[in-house]
Amino acid sequence: MPPLLAISAGDPGGIGPEVLAAALADPARRARARVALFAPARAILATPHGRALPLSIRPDSPDLGPPPAPGEIVLIDLTSPDASAPWPASDNAPAGDTSFRAVNRAVDLALRPPADPWHAHAVVTGPISKRAWALAGHATYPGHTELLAARCHVAHATMAFHAPPPGANDPTPLHAGLSVALVSVHRPLRDVPGLLTAARITDTIARAHDFARQLGVASPRVGVCGLNPHAGEGGLLGTEDRDVIAPAVRAARVAGIDAQGPFPADTIFGAALAFADAPPSRFDIVVAMYHDQGLIPLKTLARDRAVNVSLGLPIVRTSPDHGTAFDIAGRALAHPGSMAAAIDLAILLAGRRAGA
Amino acid sequence: MPPLLAISAGDPGGIGPEVLAAALADPARRARARVALFAPARAILATPHGRALPLSIRPDSPDLGPPPAPGEIVLIDLTSPDASAPWPASDNAPAGDTSFRAVNRAVDLALRPPADPWHAHAVVTGPISKRAWALAGHATYPGHTELLAARCHVAHATMAFHAPPPGANDPTPLHAGLSVALVSVHRPLRDVPGLLTAARITDTIARAHDFARQLGVASPRVGVCGLNPHAGEGGLLGTEDRDVIAPAVRAARVAGIDAQGPFPADTIFGAALAFADAPPSRFDIVVAMYHDQGLIPLKTLARDRAVNVSLGLPIVRTSPDHGTAFDIAGRALAHPGSMAAAIDLAILLAGRRAGA
Repeated sequence: MPPLLAISAGDPGGIGPEVLAAALADPARRARARVALFAPARAILATPHGRALPLSIRPDSPDLGPPPAPGEIVLIDLTSPDASAPWPASDNAPAGDTSFRAVNRAVDLALRPPADPWHAHAVVTGPISKRAWALAGHATYPGHTELLAARCHVAHATMAFHAPPPGANDPTPLHAGLSVALVSVHRPLRDVPGLLTAARITDTIARAHDFARQLGVASPRVGVCGLNPHAGEGGLLGTEDRDVIAPAVRAARVAGIDAQGPFPADTIFGAALAFADAPPSRFDIVVAMYHDQGLIPLKTLARDRAVNVSLGLPIVRTSPDHGTAFDIAGRALAHPGSMAAAIDLAILLAGRRAGA
Repeated sequence: MPPLLAISAGDPGGIGPEVLAAALADPARRARARVALFAPARAILATPHGRALPLSIRPDSPDLGPPPAPGEIVLIDLTSPDASAPWPASDNAPAGDTSFRAVNRAVDLALRPPADPWHAHAVVTGPISKRAWALAGHATYPGHTELLAARCHVAHATMAFHAPPPGANDPTPLHAGLSVALVSVHRPLRDVPGLLTAARITDTIARAHDFARQLGVASPRVGVCGLNPHAGEGGLLGTEDRDVIAPAVRAARVAGIDAQGPFPADTIFGAALAFADAPPSRFDIVVAMYHDQGLIPLKTLARDRAVNVSLGLPIVRTSPDHGTAFDIAGRALAHPGSMAAAIDLAILLAGRRAGA
């Protein structure tokens, strides 16, 4: 039986509904899943691909009816009955409230007991507007990651990214997959050195290791970035590499993980990639200390293919690596590649967790 | 008449001599220059390509004799007469003193008046060991850039990098050239936010603009990175983007430069690249705030092809983007691509300065 995916379409005025409908337009992808989609039906039906999708549209009620069959999409309609105008491509409270409800309803399914027929094996979330959440009174959660951690009663989730290897006809510059886990995320760069602790880094290394195993690597090799230029050059260019990161790597090794580093961040990503003309990759996943350190190489190399994954949660959760893109929403300009990759990765990880 | 290049071979025990000899082994490259090479002759002759090079070996004396003819390499031998053992691949004072002398002698030629037949139109420097310089008593200068600024009576040089577009048969992931200029370089990450001033950033933007013009771009578009994740997201994730970088970009625009930003650093490099399957590039050069921000994308994308260029000097100076690599020196394993690109770029920039 294919896994049940609980998908939230994201902000109804953003590009979430259109990239989601485009990604689900592929019958081969649909056949590998059962989909519970939380969105306003008219946001999906307003997209070119959405109109052509085979959808079972149901109201959002305590009794959801029979769960989706293989290849079926049950669209649980979050529209309020009196809404009729198109969703504006801008931050507004009704949209924020709708996308907030969609995520929560998707997580509800993932937290149902495994024996429940509506238990979701993975959650895929479309892009939301943090400002719209705040306008709707949900400012407690700056974003998905914090909400998911709270819903799962976990102190913090680790933000990671995975770009699968390109397809045979995919003319991207990335010749292999690349996976990155971040020790810190949405913090001013000024605060990053003070945020780094050996415990937090070792924890991220362990989560990265587990993620690489879920991706199918039997004995993952984890490469760890330094913080400073040249990884501190022995303390000349900063001390955190020597005094915080190196001990964290040693602790991970004591715990049996093949972690190496800290390495200069300007050479480690090249070493993690297996280019056609280069030596085999040296690392299966890279641990970066801060947002741009990990996302500069990932987004530059893997346009339209990178997936955001939450690690350290009891549930599987993926999402595309882009935002609502209000500036191009509704014009069929958005590339569905990242959303398609997010769905594919959710299917893969759900299978791994189930021991498939 | 082809330009006169003054080349220092770098640390004689590192990979400098072998990659230099390999790069000069191409007769087409030699034909486009006249070369004054400063190195111990036996370091060059110890390399496979060096033995086959047509060399005019002369002692280092006040009278250097006739300058090199087109395609000719005049090797000015810096070996002391009693030296005979091979140069060790390690930090040591004699090697440090030799590579220090080589750079200075090369700069001497660049600082000669333009009418002097030994006036060098560009300097190319091989990789040196900063530790060896310190062991030899030259610790005043942490590296090439500081020495060059002092020799040229300039307050500071800007470190920039350029990766030329790959050749037709070059299987690299970079489908176009990429140029990057750095506002700060070899400083602990912790110190970077405090180092950024609008004046310094505007100055770097201006130097980047001039460099792109020298590369042949008539009206360069300069993209400027933010410092914080998402370029600060309106101040939520840090204030430097709004309070320091944005004013610096505005000042550059007032000065007539097409500068744009600050942009999130994880998307600007993709926008600066013209991939075969993507829209045209939006920027001709990117200004990065700190070392890894600029060098992560550059080194990851342009393996064996990136060139280090010093901006803000009265002379042209290029070098490969790698170090002495003592661990592989003398084994013909080092890739000469970056050194070859450094020589080619020096020839190009010398021609541009000469109005060619």
